[in-house]
Amino acid sequence: MIPKVDGTHDVSLRSWVESANDPATDFPVQNLPLGAFRYRDEGPPRIGCAIGDQVLDLAACAERGLLRGLPSDVGDACRGTALNGLMSLEPRVRGTLRHRLSHLLRSEGGFVTAQAEAPNVLVPRADAEMRLPAAVGDYTDFYASVFHATNVGRMLRPDHPLLPNYKWVPIGYHGRASSLVVSGTPVVRPCGQTEPPEGGTPAFGPSRSLDYELEVGAFLGPGNALGRTIPVAEAEDHIFGLCLLNDWSARDVQRWEYQPLGPFLAKSFATSVSPWVVTIEALAPYRVPAFARPEGDPRPLPYLAHEENEAHGGIDLRLEVLLSSRAMREQALAPFSLSRSNLRALYWTLAQMVAHHASNGCNLRPGDLVASGTVSGEAKEARGCLLERTWRGAEPLALPGGETRRFLEDGDEVILRGHCEREGFARIGFGECRGVVRAASESA
Amino acid sequence: MIPKVDGTHDVSLRSWVESANDPATDFPVQNLPLGAFRYRDEGPPRIGCAIGDQVLDLAACAERGLLRGLPSDVGDACRGTALNGLMSLEPRVRGTLRHRLSHLLRSEGGFVTAQAEAPNVLVPRADAEMRLPAAVGDYTDFYASVFHATNVGRMLRPDHPLLPNYKWVPIGYHGRASSLVVSGTPVVRPCGQTEPPEGGTPAFGPSRSLDYELEVGAFLGPGNALGRTIPVAEAEDHIFGLCLLNDWSARDVQRWEYQPLGPFLAKSFATSVSPWVVTIEALAPYRVPAFARPEGDPRPLPYLAHEENEAHGGIDLRLEVLLSSRAMREQALAPFSLSRSNLRALYWTLAQMVAHHASNGCNLRPGDLVASGTVSGEAKEARGCLLERTWRGAEPLALPGGETRRFLEDGDEVILRGHCEREGFARIGFGECRGVVRAASESA
Repeated sequence: MIPKVDGTHDVSLRSWVESANDPATDFPVQNLPLGAFRYRDEGPPRIGCAIGDQVLDLAACAERGLLRGLPSDVGDACRGTALNGLMSLEPRVRGTLRHRLSHLLRSEGGFVTAQAEAPNVLVPRADAEMRLPAAVGDYTDFYASVFHATNVGRMLRPDHPLLPNYKWVPIGYHGRASSLVVSGTPVVRPCGQTEPPEGGTPAFGPSRSLDYELEVGAFLGPGNALGRTIPVAEAEDHIFGLCLLNDWSARDVQRWEYQPLGPFLAKSFATSVSPWVVTIEALAPYRVPAFARPEGDPRPLPYLAHEENEAHGGIDLRLEVLLSSRAMREQALAPFSLSRSNLRALYWTLAQMVAHHASNGCNLRPGDLVASGTVSGEAKEARGCLLERTWRGAEPLALPGGETRRFLEDGDEVILRGHCEREGFARIGFGECRGVVRAASESA
Repeated sequence: MIPKVDGTHDVSLRSWVESANDPATDFPVQNLPLGAFRYRDEGPPRIGCAIGDQVLDLAACAERGLLRGLPSDVGDACRGTALNGLMSLEPRVRGTLRHRLSHLLRSEGGFVTAQAEAPNVLVPRADAEMRLPAAVGDYTDFYASVFHATNVGRMLRPDHPLLPNYKWVPIGYHGRASSLVVSGTPVVRPCGQTEPPEGGTPAFGPSRSLDYELEVGAFLGPGNALGRTIPVAEAEDHIFGLCLLNDWSARDVQRWEYQPLGPFLAKSFATSVSPWVVTIEALAPYRVPAFARPEGDPRPLPYLAHEENEAHGGIDLRLEVLLSSRAMREQALAPFSLSRSNLRALYWTLAQMVAHHASNGCNLRPGDLVASGTVSGEAKEARGCLLERTWRGAEPLALPGGETRRFLEDGDEVILRGHCEREGFARIGFGECRGVVRAASESA
């Protein structure tokens, strides 16, 4: 079931953590995203909740008795080193934590507060070294923007850009879990084989068309046993929360390797995720109808169709990609916005992706990561990767300071941002997903 | 470096475990494969070594002091619940365990024996419930048989069956780790979408062309850090050992879903592996030259080329697929051999797959699983899946008892077997990888 708006979303709530009341913060008391962090390199990672410019340490909260009265498995999960324990809980159980955090952090009206314990349970966000939110068992990448699929298809097959399966099958593929990295981790430009001229020998060397992909990732909740399925009506119960995700891609490598089994080394060198998981409960006010299929498009097959999904399966999540080149940083120029898009542009909802994924009996596990694919909208400015944005380099982008970009250069930093806003509700943000491109290493 | 033949391979060695001296056993004292097992449902899994019809319990050996003198991380790893700890050790370190096991189990000439402790350290193999040998972080499936790729390509593209990248790129894709299961686990026939007639609506239901794929899996050793590579000359150091692997495939689902991102739900419902990992050290006597590329084929690019790999990169591993239908079992008919093949038929060596996999900086981790792809040989009888063996159903196979098979039926049990033999050396086997097809569940 899609979570409902409740008291935790009340726009009038304020926090005793003053920075959380700044209208520009991503993390007001209505958000309460969760992540894993280390503080001053001490010990194993701990679970925290972002609030303004601070982190509420949930293990410390448990130690100080601030989680008393919650189901015991919530307290146990809050003492974990990653969010997998919380992700394994049923929505009703994990929902108790959101309510408690809301009360602990609101400035008035909470039945219990963490304010008296602030020195023991708060850490400045600037001092928290963020880790991957979960130990990801499997990472799956979908291809859910019809605009992205059509643009890419048009480059490869001008006559019939969209393959006949696209409007029936939420297309996806297995990604590489080992090379998931948290925002801020530098990304080494990969080496790889590229297509030779007819009859020639392929080159092997650093990719010359390194790209980003603006995506949203969904960390999964309880999941299903092998051989069982997840009906689309229940799929939302298995979505724990969302993050921003950059599916770095080496286009020249991809083009040469991807037939017939799909992308492999063109993607597996790194995938960056933002550290704060915005829970599906926090997103309740920003739900919108699923993508309106144009006249003439087929209706989803019964196993992917559900009334609630059609009415509220979309999420009005505004996304942006920014670029900061080394030269721009040296000239103190601000990051430059390359595109703005919105998750509601997806042809398939997250619930449909989850239901499809499990429809063959494949077991989904707590902490598995399911990404949307490049979130491109219809407009040119809403295209979520350079391949589309520069039309394979044919239309270079001008950067402030005089540079141009066809693909990424060494030293470029890509920054993804996302937030939700709606009249009568708070603005909540996702923080950032950042990564700097490093030159191909000598060892490669 | 490819492991060398040493005293542990001496054909004259015999074991005090009498069943290990039976010429028909897969597990003589020259083999010493490792696995994870539970005994009588008691406690967490333990690590064991198969010897004849017994299992040597390595944690019990450690407790009894039988591993004294080995590096401490070997002892620690032997107390693990899966082989990941052993897999993380450098070849030289893990090699000390093989030598100790050989001495503990040989009937004479060992500098230490486990015989006196037999009641405390041996378990009948029939009572050991086998588990997945390792916690697999990522599972990758290659496509390394040129005969398989050509046969499949011929069905799809009669004019140019082999794609232009095949002889340059060890083609592979990411598989699903969550649905890896150990031999003996039943496999539920998956449901999925299948291609509609032109302009029609796809069907959704149980696959009607369920297939097996005869493969070999390599569990990886230490691996590499993200952003670093593994030179082909060092790749063998990162192969811990091999198992048999059945990459169950729903051909009708695959055909409809696989463009443009590769196989997804057609494969992710189950992948079976045999429980005993035959170490790369045990395979030393059976090394053979890499596949002899036909005149006119390109030489591997420098990052995939290495003299030792060319001379000894292949493995003479004889493989067989057998089928036992429900009717055959009811009539007490023996499993029927469908094909016989050999790992040496692979166009790419395991070392080349590992080096290619890490060539973009993708980090490989201890316990990761890399599979060969269907091991088809040149002959019709050496084709490793029904798709090829029955030529997409056009040439049904006759089973004993009067049945025929185009694809798998409910109740069919698929059995993979493998062994190595060479004049002057022992015959060592891989045990079996089994799985029975269950009818699509009601819940699907």
